[in-house]
Amino acid sequence: MKIICSKADLAKGVGIVSKAVPSKTTMPILECILIDATLDIIRLTANDMELGIQTEIDGDIREHGMIAIDAKIFLEIVRKLPDSDIVIETDEKDQMTITCEKAKFDIMGRSGDDFSYLPVIEKTETVTISQFTLKEVIRQTIFSIADNESNKLMTGELFEIKDGVLRVVSLDGHRISIRKIELKEECQDHKIVVPGKTLMEISKILSGEAESQVSMYFTGNHIVFEFDRTVVVSRLIEGEYFKIDQMLSSDYETKVRINKRDFLNCIDRATLLVKEGDKKPIIINIGDDVMELRIKSQFGSMNEDIMITKEGKDLMIGFNPKFLIDALRVIDDEEVDLYLMNAKAPCFIKDETESYIYLILPVNFNAI
Amino acid sequence: MKIICSKADLAKGVGIVSKAVPSKTTMPILECILIDATLDIIRLTANDMELGIQTEIDGDIREHGMIAIDAKIFLEIVRKLPDSDIVIETDEKDQMTITCEKAKFDIMGRSGDDFSYLPVIEKTETVTISQFTLKEVIRQTIFSIADNESNKLMTGELFEIKDGVLRVVSLDGHRISIRKIELKEECQDHKIVVPGKTLMEISKILSGEAESQVSMYFTGNHIVFEFDRTVVVSRLIEGEYFKIDQMLSSDYETKVRINKRDFLNCIDRATLLVKEGDKKPIIINIGDDVMELRIKSQFGSMNEDIMITKEGKDLMIGFNPKFLIDALRVIDDEEVDLYLMNAKAPCFIKDETESYIYLILPVNFNAI
Repeated sequence: MKIICSKADLAKGVGIVSKAVPSKTTMPILECILIDATLDIIRLTANDMELGIQTEIDGDIREHGMIAIDAKIFLEIVRKLPDSDIVIETDEKDQMTITCEKAKFDIMGRSGDDFSYLPVIEKTETVTISQFTLKEVIRQTIFSIADNESNKLMTGELFEIKDGVLRVVSLDGHRISIRKIELKEECQDHKIVVPGKTLMEISKILSGEAESQVSMYFTGNHIVFEFDRTVVVSRLIEGEYFKIDQMLSSDYETKVRINKRDFLNCIDRATLLVKEGDKKPIIINIGDDVMELRIKSQFGSMNEDIMITKEGKDLMIGFNPKFLIDALRVIDDEEVDLYLMNAKAPCFIKDETESYIYLILPVNFNAI
Repeated sequence: MKIICSKADLAKGVGIVSKAVPSKTTMPILECILIDATLDIIRLTANDMELGIQTEIDGDIREHGMIAIDAKIFLEIVRKLPDSDIVIETDEKDQMTITCEKAKFDIMGRSGDDFSYLPVIEKTETVTISQFTLKEVIRQTIFSIADNESNKLMTGELFEIKDGVLRVVSLDGHRISIRKIELKEECQDHKIVVPGKTLMEISKILSGEAESQVSMYFTGNHIVFEFDRTVVVSRLIEGEYFKIDQMLSSDYETKVRINKRDFLNCIDRATLLVKEGDKKPIIINIGDDVMELRIKSQFGSMNEDIMITKEGKDLMIGFNPKFLIDALRVIDDEEVDLYLMNAKAPCFIKDETESYIYLILPVNFNAI
């Protein structure tokens, strides 16, 4: 194989597919990316059997062929080469030579034959949304997946298509995050659970432009994302997702409208007094026009008043401050509405059209 | 005590003195900073008995007094408060209340009486240099102190004043870094060893402006730095420093002039093939007009040619690439001169006036 491509194109392509390279594995071939120039286009592929990414790059193919190469070292070399044309040549023993200006690297590659290609997915129906929307939806929900493996379904996100609406849901047993997107085209109903890892990695690759589109295909076992010149294929998490609708309610006894930035800054200050792993709740005391927040720990205590607009009853309720911070950070609105029932019932943060809903369970506290 | 000062002033002052707060200590009082408003100025002090820092801040003293407070938590609180006036009040039980707009923190302080003041140093003769120069000199030498404690003197830097020149030296057994500064004023000769930690911390506090001055005083056991409204007092390292002049030589058989950026980038690329802790040398082969660099490791090999101007003999020599990188990174010149004798003798990188000298010992290698 002999190919020539620009440093910028190669670095971008290798950066994209590297997201599917596992950090730990017992199979060295999985730590590789495949450079495939057997046809008339240069394709880079990485595949850890759960998540696979393939992308095409521009370049000049002087001699067809393919090779697998350790992803980490190849990415580092490409990134540090001068901003110029890079020549990659391999011999019959899979020895690879990378030349760029006066620098020359000789690296041992592996035969491309050992490499697992991406599964072939039959593309039937497509769901298309903008890269911007997909990236936002992931950012606004990914924080509330569970990172433990004891309940596999909690490590993924529900992608549910029903009546022309895509609903993305994540939950970890203490809170639920929901985002709804109106789809532009008619589409069959689907209900699948996408691994959180896939969504985190794809979110790093998406350009996030509102004009660029992502096409999604679903099968019984896989989801495929296609955008720009990249294809991402991920296995799905098997099983029946939690029945979300039973947990949602639109009843409330207290409604609070509050400036999001003030609320967030205040909780942020309060958590200074709480060490990580320490489960001190922040106590919220809702009165007329004013909400008092307070927290107490071994280091001292803090309290602060924030102006609010209130409807309904007064209420005192406690929360894990981290859960409030996580939700408030990803909401783009300047003001948010909190809907509360009583000190034992969940708090809902949502907008009027319910394009987002954050449910947070309260915690017990000793009124000080 | 009751004082009022701006968030910006307080955050800056606490940030400065916090540099003298040890991260680990068995004496809780050392983790505190002292807020002293017993006189007509607000002074902040931290002192870990080796290094002490005191700074003055503007503010309104409503009630004289002083208090010691945990530095870490106090710094975090001050930083996260709104950009407004901060009121600090203490009661007779050393309970401290910090109020800023609607936020109020109650924190337990400690009696200021337990706090160790900075040692009183008699200021006799002063050496004055600009903040810019001191910051540069530290940056250009600090990387070659040794971080192990087996030879205490190697963890510090020699500050030697002789014939109106300040010479700053660090060494770790494999290399020596030397910077020389012509002093503007006449001054007695001095020879002291300043702890590396002191220099690292002071370098973070210095504004680095060429117009601002630092005054230095020396005693048998201490060095004092005074700048802006801050005083830094540090213990010295005791003992006789290494005899540097015996290790320096101006003889050479080969002189190479090379573009610093090209040289640095090339070594940087070469080290991609070397894992941390792996002691692979970079081999430099000096010929007429061209210098070849090459490195070989378990991952593969790399070589690159760089154009040079050479005087004297051809030479092949090996180095720990890190030592070359460290020295080249801190040199500001576009081109550097290397002076070499043979494959077993040290390499000198220095400018014509010897305002800087970097000595690096070569390493053995197997010519490939």
